[in-house]
Order: sequence, then C-alpha cells, then structure tokens
Amino acid sequence: MADGHLAETGGNGDAVLAGYRRSIDNIDAAIIHMLAERFRITKAVGLHKAHNALPPADPGREEAQIARLRALAASADLDPEFGEKFLRFIIDEVIRHHERARGA
Amino acid sequence: MADGHLAETGGNGDAVLAGYRRSIDNIDAAIIHMLAERFRITKAVGLHKAHNALPPADPGREEAQIARLRALAASADLDPEFGEKFLRFIIDEVIRHHERARGA
Repeated sequence: MADGHLAETGGNGDAVLAGYRRSIDNIDAAIIHMLAERFRITKAVGLHKAHNALPPADPGREEAQIARLRALAASADLDPEFGEKFLRFIIDEVIRHHERARGA
Repeated sequence: MADGHLAETGGNGDAVLAGYRRSIDNIDAAIIHMLAERFRITKAVGLHKAHNALPPADPGREEAQIARLRALAASADLDPEFGEKFLRFIIDEVIRHHERARGA
C-alpha cells in the first residue's frame, strides 16, 4: 500500500483479478487528476467571464459539447447516452463550484 | 471542426475563452477514452469472475476504492465528496453494463 495502490491480490488471492484491479486503480487516479485540471480551467473560465462581463451560461456551447461527447463515446464503443450523462455529471459539479465561489 | 474540436473562438469571438474551451475539450476526450478502457477492464473482470465462480460483488474492495478516491481527490485539491460521487457514478454504469451483458 506504500505506493497508494490497493491490495496486490484480490480478497480471494486471485492474481488475475488483482492485476485488473491495479489497472482500474491507475485509470481512476489518472481520471481524478484530469478532472482536477478540468476544474482548474472552468474556474479560470468563471473568473474570465466575470472580469469581462460575459454571460455565465452559453447554451450553444453546451449543445456542441453534448453532441461531441456523444460522438466520442460512440467512437470509443461506449453508449452515447453515457457520454452525455458524463458531461452533465461534470457540469453539475462545475455549477456547484461556481455557486460556492459566489458564496465565498 | 475537421479535427473534432469545437469552435476556435467562443460564441463571442473571445480568444482567451476559446483557448480554455479547447483545453476542456482535450481533457474531456482523454477522460472518455480512459473510461472506455476502464469499462473494457470491468467487462473482463465480470467474465473472469463468472468463469471462476467468484462472487460478483466485493464490498471490501468498494470500501477501499472509495477511501482511496476520496484521498486522491483531496490531494488534487478536489472535494473528497466529489471523489466518492465520481466512483459511484462509474460503478452505476458498470452495473448497467453487467445487467445488459446478462440480458444479452
């Protein structure tokens, strides 16, 4: 556990399962760090919009993002619905960040 | 748009905003493809468990994943709650995949 990884073997000592889990843990760490960078950028976007009196929401941009993520999901052999759900999940968190920033 | 990116400038022609959006779009594409790889692995995990008569759920593993993602989120300056929410969002999709696989 010294390197932040979970058990070397599955609860049942299955080495194949442990290998899969190690890959999943690596991917999860990579995604969390990419999300952290994404939120850093949306924070900068919020400040930039506030400083330049730009409207906070841009429905055209969101529509284009949804269409793009649906297509990307399909090309990666994922359900396009999942691509859209993922974007909405992230956007909800961005809105929470902006609300918290306004409250601060 | 030829490279799959969205508009070069924001709807209002703001180059700074357009640059931020281009970074966000790159990150989103990277995350979608990492998620696609993650789901490929959980699919293999499902098959491996089925072939070896291993139990589908492992509450200890999930608890360890939650604790790890909360800590990773905090270290990346994200809300630990978000780390946990993210994992639950992904696990819900994994369950949907497994249900669909069983139905097929």
